[in-house]
Amino acid sequence: MKLSKLVGERTKEVPSSATVKSQAFLMRAGYIKQVSNGIYSLLTPGQKVSYKIQNIIREEMNKIDGQEVLMPVVMPREMWDESGRYSSIGSEMVRFKDRSGHDMLLGMTHEEAAVHLARNLVKSYEQLPFMIYQIQTKFRDEARSRAGLIRVREFTMKDAYSFHASQKDLEEYYNKVYDAYFNIYNRLGLKNVISVASDSGMMGGKIAHEYMLLTDIGEDSIAICPECSYRANVEVAKGILDKSFNNEQPLEEVYTGNAKSIDEICQFFNIQPNQTCKAVCYAMEGEQEKSLLAFVRGDLEVNEAKLKALIGRDVAPKDLDNSILVKGNIGPLNLNNDNLIIVYDESLKDENNLICGANKEEYHIKGLNISRDLVGVEFHDISKVKDGEICVECGKGVLKISRGVEIGNIFQLGTKYTKPMNMTVHAQNGEEINPIMGCYGIGVGRNLACIAEEGSDEKGLIWNMNVAPWEVVICPLRIDDEVVCDKANSLYLELKNKGVDVLFDDRDNVSAGVKFADSELMGIPVRVVVSPRSLSSGEVEVAFRSTGEKKMVKYDEIVSYLIKYINEQKF
Amino acid sequence: MKLSKLVGERTKEVPSSATVKSQAFLMRAGYIKQVSNGIYSLLTPGQKVSYKIQNIIREEMNKIDGQEVLMPVVMPREMWDESGRYSSIGSEMVRFKDRSGHDMLLGMTHEEAAVHLARNLVKSYEQLPFMIYQIQTKFRDEARSRAGLIRVREFTMKDAYSFHASQKDLEEYYNKVYDAYFNIYNRLGLKNVISVASDSGMMGGKIAHEYMLLTDIGEDSIAICPECSYRANVEVAKGILDKSFNNEQPLEEVYTGNAKSIDEICQFFNIQPNQTCKAVCYAMEGEQEKSLLAFVRGDLEVNEAKLKALIGRDVAPKDLDNSILVKGNIGPLNLNNDNLIIVYDESLKDENNLICGANKEEYHIKGLNISRDLVGVEFHDISKVKDGEICVECGKGVLKISRGVEIGNIFQLGTKYTKPMNMTVHAQNGEEINPIMGCYGIGVGRNLACIAEEGSDEKGLIWNMNVAPWEVVICPLRIDDEVVCDKANSLYLELKNKGVDVLFDDRDNVSAGVKFADSELMGIPVRVVVSPRSLSSGEVEVAFRSTGEKKMVKYDEIVSYLIKYINEQKF
Repeated sequence: MKLSKLVGERTKEVPSSATVKSQAFLMRAGYIKQVSNGIYSLLTPGQKVSYKIQNIIREEMNKIDGQEVLMPVVMPREMWDESGRYSSIGSEMVRFKDRSGHDMLLGMTHEEAAVHLARNLVKSYEQLPFMIYQIQTKFRDEARSRAGLIRVREFTMKDAYSFHASQKDLEEYYNKVYDAYFNIYNRLGLKNVISVASDSGMMGGKIAHEYMLLTDIGEDSIAICPECSYRANVEVAKGILDKSFNNEQPLEEVYTGNAKSIDEICQFFNIQPNQTCKAVCYAMEGEQEKSLLAFVRGDLEVNEAKLKALIGRDVAPKDLDNSILVKGNIGPLNLNNDNLIIVYDESLKDENNLICGANKEEYHIKGLNISRDLVGVEFHDISKVKDGEICVECGKGVLKISRGVEIGNIFQLGTKYTKPMNMTVHAQNGEEINPIMGCYGIGVGRNLACIAEEGSDEKGLIWNMNVAPWEVVICPLRIDDEVVCDKANSLYLELKNKGVDVLFDDRDNVSAGVKFADSELMGIPVRVVVSPRSLSSGEVEVAFRSTGEKKMVKYDEIVSYLIKYINEQKF
Repeated sequence: MKLSKLVGERTKEVPSSATVKSQAFLMRAGYIKQVSNGIYSLLTPGQKVSYKIQNIIREEMNKIDGQEVLMPVVMPREMWDESGRYSSIGSEMVRFKDRSGHDMLLGMTHEEAAVHLARNLVKSYEQLPFMIYQIQTKFRDEARSRAGLIRVREFTMKDAYSFHASQKDLEEYYNKVYDAYFNIYNRLGLKNVISVASDSGMMGGKIAHEYMLLTDIGEDSIAICPECSYRANVEVAKGILDKSFNNEQPLEEVYTGNAKSIDEICQFFNIQPNQTCKAVCYAMEGEQEKSLLAFVRGDLEVNEAKLKALIGRDVAPKDLDNSILVKGNIGPLNLNNDNLIIVYDESLKDENNLICGANKEEYHIKGLNISRDLVGVEFHDISKVKDGEICVECGKGVLKISRGVEIGNIFQLGTKYTKPMNMTVHAQNGEEINPIMGCYGIGVGRNLACIAEEGSDEKGLIWNMNVAPWEVVICPLRIDDEVVCDKANSLYLELKNKGVDVLFDDRDNVSAGVKFADSELMGIPVRVVVSPRSLSSGEVEVAFRSTGEKKMVKYDEIVSYLIKYINEQKF
């Protein structure tokens, strides 16, 4: 490829729309161009990196016997009615009517399509297990796209679906995929990747893992134990709280005036938030009359993901009017309201002498001990773990909350799709069974952005040899010099012939400084400078993007030198 | 790949939904599965063939300096408002609102996106010409999907867009693409491919070519001159009609009673249809009051594509009520109606003594000679060419109308998109100019289906070596025999290691006959049979799908034999 004709600009200005480093560099170096909110075009360098990532993913999927297929982007409503997700998924799924008025949708995930593909074709347990996957375009109407390719609405994704005759077989295969994902990240050159236990969200199923790239730009929070292997998305993470059961005090109503928030109450009583009991109110999906009231210890936050999992439906924060509850004075005592479903967090168990609302204006209650003061209360884990809690796994480590970008996820689905969609096979014992499924996703563009986020410096991108759009860039200086032009050209052609991915900076109207800066901004691993001066001693200069090192190599040896170097750098 | 785990069935029954051979075989052999009207999933063999086709296309595009990019499937309305196509394209384009109420659409072609990508990035004529292309999913809400992958709603397509500083430069590049397309079809193994002059349809522009695979299942009609190189889609094709100017007769009104259709009139007067003048009425897009009335010679059909091109907007057949015209008795004389736009076909020029309607019930007129009887009539080419007309190009050949499937198209677009979308570059003379564009499309799935349509016999598919999903299938007979199992297995592994695309029919529960029938149905070019009998003389049997030939090869030589054969068969 000749740079003079490459569509794309290299610019110094940081685009005002860029919120993270990878986005800024990918835009400045001509890899991506925004089309609309959360929608990008990939220019040639971007598409080249994307293909290299796809090929690595494909190879790892084929190694674990994946069968590549292609399912549609546009699907009819019927399949999604079978699974129940046509109505259960919200506005992130695009729905439209086709010209004949038929309800269609854009697939954001393909469990239904995978079952549709396999059912009737697979009839016996002997054909199990198998895994099908695709690398395909998806559209998810994200409310908040952000950070360039990190969170977009349209993206290229590898999604895989495995089918098994038993839970044990699924677990065995799940472990293979678990490892394959780490192989992928290794080959992509991503370093700070961990796996975490996660919530299965709209996929259903119980066991799920997310792969997280630890980075400050992440929007996920992960609890990590430094002492053992425990790591979990805060959506599902648990910790052990320090509890402070003190000398038991009696209940007492206290006039607190305008003090309503936890802060105000703490100030009023001169206590810490963990000595209070906080109330948060939620609306529940599909429920008009009843509201959900969650009580947690005052220093904690309600974890909506846990709450959803507990009650089995979606929740959204809700502001109740004063006719139902006395805002700012809500507490668990004297709370008789048939329109409330009440949930208590485990943080409140074995705590006493808490302050809570008295359910009447301007009053709170002191000395609350829920186990003593209320009958038959059950406690559930519905709060967010926080920095400093003790690890539930080893009981020793102090959990640290880190930021991460989710760069892959795997789920054990059970029969959530095969059962309602009526996919059955003959089991060995002659019975008809619903195959047990797993599903496994990885976004190509997000990983591309994450490689860029991890691999860059102040000058620009630093691609590793496995995914670099070009392995080598040739920069002739003084291309008007006939010898330089000849030598650079024949080097370009010979490298191309030998299968090296080579970019030729044939521009004659820019300075050496611009050529160098562009090659660094674009992040090409190796730059070969062909100049009258170096050629006078039969040499060319080779510069290495990742280390900044430079060395002179004999022109006659440069092709074999580069091929050897490139092969060594691949991993 | 082991056949026992390959998802997909091989069936004998011809699916009732299959209307053409390729569709039936692709379904029966487990290449495709229908999801919805015009929407298919590709199973692994199908996706493998698709990728091989894509790679051939990609290589040929790269040879003519194409830059592969990726534009979005989902686009915002604004870009399409700029070109005017948001409103000009009908219901074949899917439109929807995103979660924030923004108008979005599914791209069925990407001229707007290509201009959006390149504008601002390309500023000088020195950066021209360039061509960008993508291989991407498209959705076109076809009213009539048909014939499996031949005409679908969702499809994978290579679309390319070139930008030039002058029409001459576009023409030079257009010729390169013209040749590249024939290279593609050659490498795909398609034989009966011709290029034809075509209508540019919704793309705009003047010069356009379609590539047609000549086959009886085609829904396009192509006029072909056997004497010269003239070939054109009947949508634009012209021919020279035989005219019969006879002894001039006067106009005469004749009572014709219930005779209304051309057939009835011919019977009534005992004449041929070419001695009549036929009227056809159309509604015009965006026009409520006026209707279009087209007159052609009675033996011809109106060509709606030509009519659209002539009046510059879409038309649709319309049934007028009798208050406006006397149905079955319409003629060009005494036709005073301000709500009619009247167009005369060239076939009526230099004809006399025609029969036409008298514009009153139960009467026709004899002796019509439009040039004599009406003042200031212009004649336009609005009729469909038919078998037997004389070639306009050489004036000698008798045109033959053949059926074809359009398997690619190329267009010279001019500034139809760059001008309204305000893409400019500095020209050499300092002026700001709108680049001149070309666009070039080829559908992957349709070509796949066409290869299957051309390459099959009564037993099933016959893939050529360039696109076959697997190059070789190994069929061990008596896999329970340890020696057979060992030898077949190590042959499988060695071929895989050497990069051969090999399928292993490891099924132990089917007969040799089923294995052979399946390999033939699937169309794998080479079958290697490993059996106790052949191994006893140190040999295996090789069978060739395309010729049906069989031969014995020493087991020790089979790997090198196959590799040599495969390489020879690639083209």
